Amino acid sequence: MVIELHDPADPRLTDFTHLRDVELRKSLEAEHGLFLAEGEKVIRRALQTGHPARAFLTTPKWLTHLADVLENQVVYVVSDALMEQVTGFPVHRGALASFERLELPSVATLARRSKRVIVLEDLVDHANVGAIFRSAAALGVDAVILSPRCADPLYRRSIKVSMGAVFAIPWARMDDWHGGLAALDGYDTLALTPDASAVSIDEVRLGEKAALLLGSEGDGLSSRWLDQATERVRIPMSPAALKNGVDSLNVVAAAAIACHSLVRPSSAGSAPS
Amino acid sequence: MVIELHDPADPRLTDFTHLRDVELRKSLEAEHGLFLAEGEKVIRRALQTGHPARAFLTTPKWLTHLADVLENQVVYVVSDALMEQVTGFPVHRGALASFERLELPSVATLARRSKRVIVLEDLVDHANVGAIFRSAAALGVDAVILSPRCADPLYRRSIKVSMGAVFAIPWARMDDWHGGLAALDGYDTLALTPDASAVSIDEVRLGEKAALLLGSEGDGLSSRWLDQATERVRIPMSPAALKNGVDSLNVVAAAAIACHSLVRPSSAGSAPS
Repeated sequence: MVIELHDPADPRLTDFTHLRDVELRKSLEAEHGLFLAEGEKVIRRALQTGHPARAFLTTPKWLTHLADVLENQVVYVVSDALMEQVTGFPVHRGALASFERLELPSVATLARRSKRVIVLEDLVDHANVGAIFRSAAALGVDAVILSPRCADPLYRRSIKVSMGAVFAIPWARMDDWHGGLAALDGYDTLALTPDASAVSIDEVRLGEKAALLLGSEGDGLSSRWLDQATERVRIPMSPAALKNGVDSLNVVAAAAIACHSLVRPSSAGSAPS
Repeated sequence: MVIELHDPADPRLTDFTHLRDVELRKSLEAEHGLFLAEGEKVIRRALQTGHPARAFLTTPKWLTHLADVLENQVVYVVSDALMEQVTGFPVHRGALASFERLELPSVATLARRSKRVIVLEDLVDHANVGAIFRSAAALGVDAVILSPRCADPLYRRSIKVSMGAVFAIPWARMDDWHGGLAALDGYDTLALTPDASAVSIDEVRLGEKAALLLGSEGDGLSSRWLDQATERVRIPMSPAALKNGVDSLNVVAAAAIACHSLVRPSSAGSAPS
């Protein structure tokens, strides 16, 4: 059903309003249980992974690109100018769609089904969360588990930076931070830290099940999670760099190295080669 | 020498104008051989690494934070409003400084002095270049070599994202793309590619000297450099992810894993442990 709209105040456009206002979007998306996908590629990925579309918003030019998936969908067509007026910015990728959120598995369920997981504690930046999901999915981590306050992987910017990988890897969110790691019973829990006394991530022996804990951008892991982890691991850094004041990696780089180590063949329970 | 300024058109402020206009800044910085550092931490790093300051621009509030390094420097103090008017955006970190660029070593000189280098071909994004410098420096890569068209590591945003790591690792820029790899005589040149037929980066045998080649964000390495490399290497990806359309890593994540592999202890010419 293709409907041309001309009034920016039309209530049917509510899903697509105020896209630059992070706080307003957060409450809107929570209230309606929706998320927003931008651009042809991620819209297709959301559909392929079984997310029910609420509505599409597109300009006439982009209507044809998505024609094959628009049957039986609600499609609002607007001018470029109205698109910008509604969303608050020029939508270069020309197409937006709002989707229902699917129910997430519980952390316990996900932990039971998986062998290699990463756990993100309180990351605040949507782009970082999206980039880490992309690395985790591409490298073959089984699942991602989030602390209660970690930024939303289905926020528009997270989805975009992940290139849709947020739909390709199972994830769950803890209800409770304080006792959250209890659901990882049976796992080696490896806390990533810059602490030089930690075990090198290249040398740590990984058991049948291993969870890698990654802390927030500024402060790293909380002392509670550091204390609860079965092991502290570090990425080996250059002593010369430390002397020059380069004493850490950004969280996306650290996560990529950590995920790569977590899925290395010799870690899957067999003896190292 | 602390000088209060009140006129946004004052020619002494030229180094600090139009900070949001990438193209204008590029030509201004090239013409005057300068770069701009933002925020206390990177300003200090630039000074510590021997870069001569041209001038400082700060608000009264931030003057005291930098007091210890401002002796014998030219310091322009302006109001918050004038700061924003001159630079074109609200400078949250409160302090800017312009510096003379130092002469870069030649690629041949840098190659001679180093054993482990990364080579960036035509990366366009300043944030990516900055993040990759940070990873390379932190992990202990000896040097970074850039293709002629690669984005500038001393652009304000690169410096900021690198957290000043661009000052901590030696780098050079090729004069010539076509024959650029010739300066890496004696190196294993490893071209990073998603190609499944390439050797896993975890398994490749690294000689005494190894250079890892990383391509641009969209297209990866040029076919010329791929052909000239002594080996093609890949980061092992998840078969399941490939099936789900997650077929690559972002360049910062890929570079981090690649740098980590490049400096692994067993690669330094000795037998693998």
